[in-house]
Amino acid sequence: MTMTESATLKDQARAARAASRRLAAATTDSRNAALLALADALQERQAEIIEVNQQDLAAAEEAGMGLHLTERMTLNPERVAGMAEAARVIAALPDPVGEVLEQKTLANGLKVERIRVPLGVIGVIYESRPNVTIDIAALCLKSGNAVILRGGKEAFRTNALLAEIVRVSIEQAGLPGGAVQFVNSTDRALVGEMLQMKDDIDLMIPRGSAELVHMVAEDATMPAITGGVGVCHTYVDSAADVGKAVDIVLNAKTQRPTVCNALDTVLVHAGIAVDFLPRMAKAMRDAGVEMRCDRRALSVIGPTGSQPIGEGQGSAAPRITAAAPEDFGQEFLSLVAAVRVVDSLDEAMEHIVEYGSGHSEAIVTEDKAAAERFLAEVDAAAVFHNTSTRFNDGGEFGLGAEVAISTNKLHARGPMGLREITSYKWVVRGDGQVRE
Amino acid sequence: MTMTESATLKDQARAARAASRRLAAATTDSRNAALLALADALQERQAEIIEVNQQDLAAAEEAGMGLHLTERMTLNPERVAGMAEAARVIAALPDPVGEVLEQKTLANGLKVERIRVPLGVIGVIYESRPNVTIDIAALCLKSGNAVILRGGKEAFRTNALLAEIVRVSIEQAGLPGGAVQFVNSTDRALVGEMLQMKDDIDLMIPRGSAELVHMVAEDATMPAITGGVGVCHTYVDSAADVGKAVDIVLNAKTQRPTVCNALDTVLVHAGIAVDFLPRMAKAMRDAGVEMRCDRRALSVIGPTGSQPIGEGQGSAAPRITAAAPEDFGQEFLSLVAAVRVVDSLDEAMEHIVEYGSGHSEAIVTEDKAAAERFLAEVDAAAVFHNTSTRFNDGGEFGLGAEVAISTNKLHARGPMGLREITSYKWVVRGDGQVRE
Repeated sequence: MTMTESATLKDQARAARAASRRLAAATTDSRNAALLALADALQERQAEIIEVNQQDLAAAEEAGMGLHLTERMTLNPERVAGMAEAARVIAALPDPVGEVLEQKTLANGLKVERIRVPLGVIGVIYESRPNVTIDIAALCLKSGNAVILRGGKEAFRTNALLAEIVRVSIEQAGLPGGAVQFVNSTDRALVGEMLQMKDDIDLMIPRGSAELVHMVAEDATMPAITGGVGVCHTYVDSAADVGKAVDIVLNAKTQRPTVCNALDTVLVHAGIAVDFLPRMAKAMRDAGVEMRCDRRALSVIGPTGSQPIGEGQGSAAPRITAAAPEDFGQEFLSLVAAVRVVDSLDEAMEHIVEYGSGHSEAIVTEDKAAAERFLAEVDAAAVFHNTSTRFNDGGEFGLGAEVAISTNKLHARGPMGLREITSYKWVVRGDGQVRE
Repeated sequence: MTMTESATLKDQARAARAASRRLAAATTDSRNAALLALADALQERQAEIIEVNQQDLAAAEEAGMGLHLTERMTLNPERVAGMAEAARVIAALPDPVGEVLEQKTLANGLKVERIRVPLGVIGVIYESRPNVTIDIAALCLKSGNAVILRGGKEAFRTNALLAEIVRVSIEQAGLPGGAVQFVNSTDRALVGEMLQMKDDIDLMIPRGSAELVHMVAEDATMPAITGGVGVCHTYVDSAADVGKAVDIVLNAKTQRPTVCNALDTVLVHAGIAVDFLPRMAKAMRDAGVEMRCDRRALSVIGPTGSQPIGEGQGSAAPRITAAAPEDFGQEFLSLVAAVRVVDSLDEAMEHIVEYGSGHSEAIVTEDKAAAERFLAEVDAAAVFHNTSTRFNDGGEFGLGAEVAISTNKLHARGPMGLREITSYKWVVRGDGQVRE
């Protein structure tokens, strides 16, 4: 990193701060106008965006990047339209800024309000997907925050163009283009530099792999959103409806196995294991899920080949094996599940305390008292009764847009939408009152 | 620090975590019963508390501690009664735990709630005042949080006894005494150790000097409340009512000059300086306030002796002098104020951006538009129109009890009461719903 680049980052932060002040005072209409201008510009400049993206792709292929990585950074007309649509959706959401959270008149006549305000300057470090540039810029713009964007080097040309389109759109609406700053260098040292700028950046958002999230959590000197790691359990209670339990477990594991709210471990009460496990095992194997089972679960359903469990079984069927200790507490992000038999609700909850990551935890039972104990006592961002952990999602919960799913307990927990990237202030109006 | 002490701290943290789970599931009545038992025990054991406190005081005097420090740690019957009263007041406050923050039924029938829950384990590092032991233990107990207390070494015996009384009272109510852990050593290395325990402590609260707050802000690996430093401005606009302005400035500066929401700098519009400054200067000098003025303010009211400003003047009157550059942006915590003349509302707000600490900022004006601009654009925990910055206070704002005044923008801003030491979780109840 040269002195110049570091100085540039400081300059960008200063410009972002100045722009954040103007943005915080801007009207809802002008911020929405900027978002709609952005949506239009993305569609108008679609060909140019795709052309620049092709340059990034060519360079990535030349550098030997794998197909699954280049696929994520590829833009086509549909994906550009998707980015434009995201900007329009965010424009249509209610404005979080200025919301009155509380209002009272004190005995001395002072009028006290607590008002939602932008946080200030948000930093974002992200990896290969260029749509993050638009998503995050749009969310920040809507919530009155300035943002400093630091994208991955593979999609550098694409991100730089997208950031430029954002800047032009903001200025078209009469707002400060400096509100969206793009770090114009792929020098990795600048990431470290950014994480030190606690006076310049109010909140850091990492978007990408678990490694990126961990690195930011470890190294950031400012508050950072920690999330993205979900070791998620579903506990099938002795009083579960077996059919429901199979459907819920299957959905939680297979509906989208690569995401943080997907199931990792099934905990099964011993009293229902003989009924439930074979039916679950059949459904899971049919869906291609490998199962890593504790001794008791294995004695009911496996290992593969030792007991026939249904028509789905065959040479191509996924394996059922004995779980290794490290399988419990692991986030698989793939079609693998750990399975354990427990003797009680308490034992299930103790397992979750020991192995869970505080993300998404579910119980399946028809026993209302057991359900309410689980919902009250399990300490996680979201707890579920008789439904799939996959519902821990900003879109599903009606937040309209999602920044991340937080496993922090301070500030925001679970899905973070617009209001979760705001702060508040106390506004007090008087007529000469003084304190006695 | 010995290995044993460090191991002990870890053990205490583990015990606190276990107790926090039981406390989170405890009823409102049982937590209130513990608080009332504590209030009774403090009064019953008053003589013993004062006797132990005398031992601390004797040791402190022997060690050559100054009177103003020993005064702060002294307990007498009134102060013990005050601690008991604080516990009763906190028992009478509404329970923050279990509050439903949001409730909706999704189109698929899922019932989604957002419920307030305790944070978990709170760490507190404090200095000489033993009442902090009771205050914080009571606030944590009420909000379902376990707490690890690390008091100053001067009041060690007193704090240890108070913590023991808390423990007994909690157990009397059938709750886990381990919910309040007292660090039973005055080894300073344990403070550093505590600040590293980010997996064991969810939030760190420093209570004491600005140095302590800064040290915790710098060194804590977990989230910490930053606050306590207030560089507070009052801007007297050209359209101010001069009488009101004098009363407000005087109150903000003198009603309790040693606290964070007291006034530090008066900004005066040039158009009202000739009317306002001499009246303010007389009132301030009568109240014993030293004024450090910029060139233009000095040309109207001083320096001392060069122009008579009223009967209050004399050899004993506080000085009016030319301000040094470092007087702006300084938190005086005493009867000293900086004074500067500005040419516009914008210049006043720029001064606040440059020198303010985001704590408490006020405007005095009869011009509603100017007031609303100031309230909207000044970025501080609390902003005031035509009233004193001294009102930035949990008690005044009706929070019932105050942990601290935060100048953070994440999680909680301004006065922090019970709800500000809580988190929330999403609770989802279904009947077999799965995600499409």
